[in-house]
Amino acid sequence: MSICRIAILGSSGSIGLNTLKVVDRHPDRFQVKALSAYNNFKLLEAQIKKYKPSFVAVGQEGLAYFKKRGIKGIKFYPVEDCAEIASARQVDAVVLAMRGTAALMPFLAAVRAGKTVAPANKEALVMAGDLIMDEARRHKARIIPIDSEQSAIFQCLQGNSSKPVFVHLTASGGPLRQVRLKDFKRMKPKDILCHPRWKMGRKITVDSATMMNKGFEVIEAKHLFDLKHHQIKVLVHPEAIIHSMVEFADGSMLAQLGITDMRLPIQYALTYPERLATGLRRLDLAQQWGKLHFEAPDLKKFPSLCLSYEAARQGGTLPAVLIAADEEAVEAFLNGEMDFLSIYKVVEKVVLRHKIVRNPSLQDILEAVKWARQEALNIIKG
Amino acid sequence: MSICRIAILGSSGSIGLNTLKVVDRHPDRFQVKALSAYNNFKLLEAQIKKYKPSFVAVGQEGLAYFKKRGIKGIKFYPVEDCAEIASARQVDAVVLAMRGTAALMPFLAAVRAGKTVAPANKEALVMAGDLIMDEARRHKARIIPIDSEQSAIFQCLQGNSSKPVFVHLTASGGPLRQVRLKDFKRMKPKDILCHPRWKMGRKITVDSATMMNKGFEVIEAKHLFDLKHHQIKVLVHPEAIIHSMVEFADGSMLAQLGITDMRLPIQYALTYPERLATGLRRLDLAQQWGKLHFEAPDLKKFPSLCLSYEAARQGGTLPAVLIAADEEAVEAFLNGEMDFLSIYKVVEKVVLRHKIVRNPSLQDILEAVKWARQEALNIIKG
Repeated sequence: MSICRIAILGSSGSIGLNTLKVVDRHPDRFQVKALSAYNNFKLLEAQIKKYKPSFVAVGQEGLAYFKKRGIKGIKFYPVEDCAEIASARQVDAVVLAMRGTAALMPFLAAVRAGKTVAPANKEALVMAGDLIMDEARRHKARIIPIDSEQSAIFQCLQGNSSKPVFVHLTASGGPLRQVRLKDFKRMKPKDILCHPRWKMGRKITVDSATMMNKGFEVIEAKHLFDLKHHQIKVLVHPEAIIHSMVEFADGSMLAQLGITDMRLPIQYALTYPERLATGLRRLDLAQQWGKLHFEAPDLKKFPSLCLSYEAARQGGTLPAVLIAADEEAVEAFLNGEMDFLSIYKVVEKVVLRHKIVRNPSLQDILEAVKWARQEALNIIKG
Repeated sequence: MSICRIAILGSSGSIGLNTLKVVDRHPDRFQVKALSAYNNFKLLEAQIKKYKPSFVAVGQEGLAYFKKRGIKGIKFYPVEDCAEIASARQVDAVVLAMRGTAALMPFLAAVRAGKTVAPANKEALVMAGDLIMDEARRHKARIIPIDSEQSAIFQCLQGNSSKPVFVHLTASGGPLRQVRLKDFKRMKPKDILCHPRWKMGRKITVDSATMMNKGFEVIEAKHLFDLKHHQIKVLVHPEAIIHSMVEFADGSMLAQLGITDMRLPIQYALTYPERLATGLRRLDLAQQWGKLHFEAPDLKKFPSLCLSYEAARQGGTLPAVLIAADEEAVEAFLNGEMDFLSIYKVVEKVVLRHKIVRNPSLQDILEAVKWARQEALNIIKG
């Protein structure tokens, strides 16, 4: 049993905090070598005091603050340089818990350095899945997803020499599952920001309402498990107890179940292939869940899902454009600049206008992202 | 890819016939080397013509019949000598599909010869699980269960270096799940012999009605997966779509799902670790099963379950006594000699009167079985 030295990129967010809880439960197994946070440097300061990392990345304001305090024995980096931390020699595993497209460069750096990467971030794999997986293969980096659905699939595939014929991503259906389509246009941010099963950030909760979040997971699963888009199915399962399933050639399916607590997939990613006690409440199907429900997703209500299947099918720069356009559109909705249905309209317009670059380089992807953001902003403002 | 030479002991029963369907689907993968049937020698004759086995075991009447017909190139054995077939050099895998306690000797012979054994029979492992598993370890024999619940657990455990903390055997609840306890005494064989999910023999359907069948599976799982009795839980799940589940230290659970068709676990046992197409209808949770239900078993209605947990806890010769007493009691019920509730009463009495032999030899087990049968008959007649 060796100690795993971890870097937590995005340590002030929900995944970061849960990762630290996992560390607290097994202090003999983990050493926190690096932390990063974008702007919550007060919380970061408390974490630094407790975990004594060697490397810290933080935004400009935080950098200035820590400089003034004159903290010794820690190397500070601008948050834009997280890639340096992610590839540091003293780090074994990188928990990629930062939001948005900013995770791409650290992810690439970590796989190129042959680290174990535990991504909670979806954007990097959606934008540049081919590049990341190629580099991971080349440098024998291990990618063990933290996202509950992808972790479930990963767990179900262990020990099966046969590849799955299908994977079934389960979806709670989000906050609008029981809202009628004709009422969608009246949905305000406050109506949406209460997810039934998971406590998450604002952006991802809106993506959950449009089911774009599940669409991103389709693209992510395609890369993580080397599948074709038509091998990935979405199954609405409101209780979110079955976290996903895989289906083999013989018709047999394996499912992973558990309570909805992110410490479970985080710990699994960091102790794999071992499993340690989490101390969490156990799932009792008979007592807590007399029934589990399943339904097909309603594609009329959630056309974003179709859009993401199209992006998964086409590949190239299209998934990156989807991600970038969606970020801008959701932001505009959250700021009250446009209504809920306009999120899809904006994203669809940008996607339709995009000229896909096949087998894109990193540069192509970054340019497509930039283009898509500007295009989305033009549509939103215009 | 090598051809697997199989012996099907009990080829005229439901498991035997389904095994032959699996063979028919993948004729390039299997060679039927041996067949046996107790008394349905007409069906056996048709199977001999089609599959051209080298060894055949059959009851007295069948032996005389085949002798008269003068069939060449096949070595015939009395059905009591199935053990010789099970251990024949030309056999790689033994499908143990014969009913009742008669499976014990062939099972032991097969593991001692280092074969892959695919047991559908419960009795052998319940009676002599310690002996069989010891011999299997010693002779590096592989046991891959066919029973849908045990197969599910086996499948869920592949690729997990950690042992499970619990396994959850699912149970359809049998034909009496929705019948009130006060109506049990009026249950006739015809009320019971219509199982909601699986088409099975008469004996096993009655055991399903008392849930003694699930109790036997508890004892079987204890041996197959090296567990303590308290690590095995029973979960009533009427749809029988989740065939069983395992639970790890971290709280994560894996479940195996599939349609209720025995060809699936049979083929898995014979092609493990590979999975081949079965051509069977696929499971569509959203379309076919909008809901899955779960409940705790009602131990007041099904005290046999408690009795079998006690037998699992005590071990020794007690499980063999449970099996033998149950066989006699169910037989008496099916023959109209006593009412439904008496099945439990008879079995309980025999179990309570038994003086357990610890670490029993095969001889001890066979004597306990003989004693239990006689004791049960005395109670039934007296």
